[in-house]
Amino acid sequence: MTGDRLLRYAVVAAAFLLVGACIGLAVAPFPAAPVSEGGADRDTLFQVSTIDALLQGTYDGSMTFDELARHGDFGIGCGDRLDGELIGVDGEWYLIRVDGRAYPVDGDATTPFAAATFFDSDMTVAIDEPMNLAALESRVQAELPSKNLFYAIRVDGTFPHLVTRSVPAQEKPYPRLADVTANQTVFTLENVTGTAVGFWTPDLAEGINVPGYHLHFITDDRTAGGHVLDMILAEGTVQVDTTMNFTMALPSGGDFLTVDLSGDLSEDLEQVE
Amino acid sequence: MTGDRLLRYAVVAAAFLLVGACIGLAVAPFPAAPVSEGGADRDTLFQVSTIDALLQGTYDGSMTFDELARHGDFGIGCGDRLDGELIGVDGEWYLIRVDGRAYPVDGDATTPFAAATFFDSDMTVAIDEPMNLAALESRVQAELPSKNLFYAIRVDGTFPHLVTRSVPAQEKPYPRLADVTANQTVFTLENVTGTAVGFWTPDLAEGINVPGYHLHFITDDRTAGGHVLDMILAEGTVQVDTTMNFTMALPSGGDFLTVDLSGDLSEDLEQVE
Repeated sequence: MTGDRLLRYAVVAAAFLLVGACIGLAVAPFPAAPVSEGGADRDTLFQVSTIDALLQGTYDGSMTFDELARHGDFGIGCGDRLDGELIGVDGEWYLIRVDGRAYPVDGDATTPFAAATFFDSDMTVAIDEPMNLAALESRVQAELPSKNLFYAIRVDGTFPHLVTRSVPAQEKPYPRLADVTANQTVFTLENVTGTAVGFWTPDLAEGINVPGYHLHFITDDRTAGGHVLDMILAEGTVQVDTTMNFTMALPSGGDFLTVDLSGDLSEDLEQVE
Repeated sequence: MTGDRLLRYAVVAAAFLLVGACIGLAVAPFPAAPVSEGGADRDTLFQVSTIDALLQGTYDGSMTFDELARHGDFGIGCGDRLDGELIGVDGEWYLIRVDGRAYPVDGDATTPFAAATFFDSDMTVAIDEPMNLAALESRVQAELPSKNLFYAIRVDGTFPHLVTRSVPAQEKPYPRLADVTANQTVFTLENVTGTAVGFWTPDLAEGINVPGYHLHFITDDRTAGGHVLDMILAEGTVQVDTTMNFTMALPSGGDFLTVDLSGDLSEDLEQVE
């Protein structure tokens, strides 16, 4: 065999190998679209535990923030042992602790209750006149296509007045959430720009999450915020992401396994929100 | 350049290209483990729509059986317009129609309400003395690790006596489910071997699915079955798959968007089950 002929064979063999490798790449078992980095559908609202478990003092974290972030770049919840109000926006996650300051989460730390999604706006509502929280909620609710779906809600704007709260880390034996929030720390923020992040939950998920609106807030400079109690929005935009799918990851151990989730805790919930 | 030298260059270049292709393959965005063929976690109970929507006559199918099968090889539900009781076992899906016969599903046909999972037994309970349905349910319930999780239940055995039902396809305007099942067709099967397939749902999912047990049945020869109303199990095995995750796919159109899901329909549910 001459060098020339050998060269031709080598080139042909290499070409076959490359084509084979490309076919291998093409038939690799990719999941069905649309998917996120973690394999989750982007139109899924992902939740850890249930609100009725939290209301009764199930405060031990069951999922790390790193794992939560695989299911969304946007969301709310709370820290392990209720240590702070959680907010995630644009893939950055913070806990607003009882000192009123925002702390980036430690990915290895855990949450006992949280909800997250990959936020893709399906609808925008422009707000160009001042309104309080109740008026804002009514304005947005009028635009929702159904009362039976889950929606992620993002409000960016200028807030002349905004009231939030946070709670301190709890010690065992854990009190009920209504007893914790009776001693919550309230923050009044004046003339801030920032983002409220949260969800609108349908009645069908009563006991699982908070029916209606549930919003947390963080300032544009990512220094302060908390669970929203009241607000005046001067101007801004509300973006709504309709999430057709709902996924719940239930804790596989700890207090969750034995807490009584058969009752109606709507009165507890009213005290807490 | 000599032929020899050219050959060496060609081989080196081909090697680089191959290594490049392999790196490309290695960093392709595979979903996180553990996943099924469809990208779903095998420990997820996947559900279409809600029981309260079905109870109120939301009978138009919203998901194809082909799509449902991507979320499980095991499950129950019903056909479009309530045309048959659905059962899936070992990846084979059947509708038991009102003539009492089992028909393999058409993958393009749809379901208005169904639940599915990839069945992996976590626990087996051997039944070696005859018992009725209530005794069997108590026996299995005593083994469940928590009343707050979802379980897939599979019963294989010999049944001296088994009572099932099915219902006919409905026409619009759809009646409520309790009115449909008031005229259900009941089948009594004697001395059959087969498999009961279904779920145990925690109270936290009241309104979403059927709290407690919900079982459908099919004979070993895959000819008959239905929604289980009563049974005597002579001997057999019960396998239980604990599913920590729960996913709900809500219909994005049709009657679901406007049905009132805020009420307590537990009385309707009692009539139906």
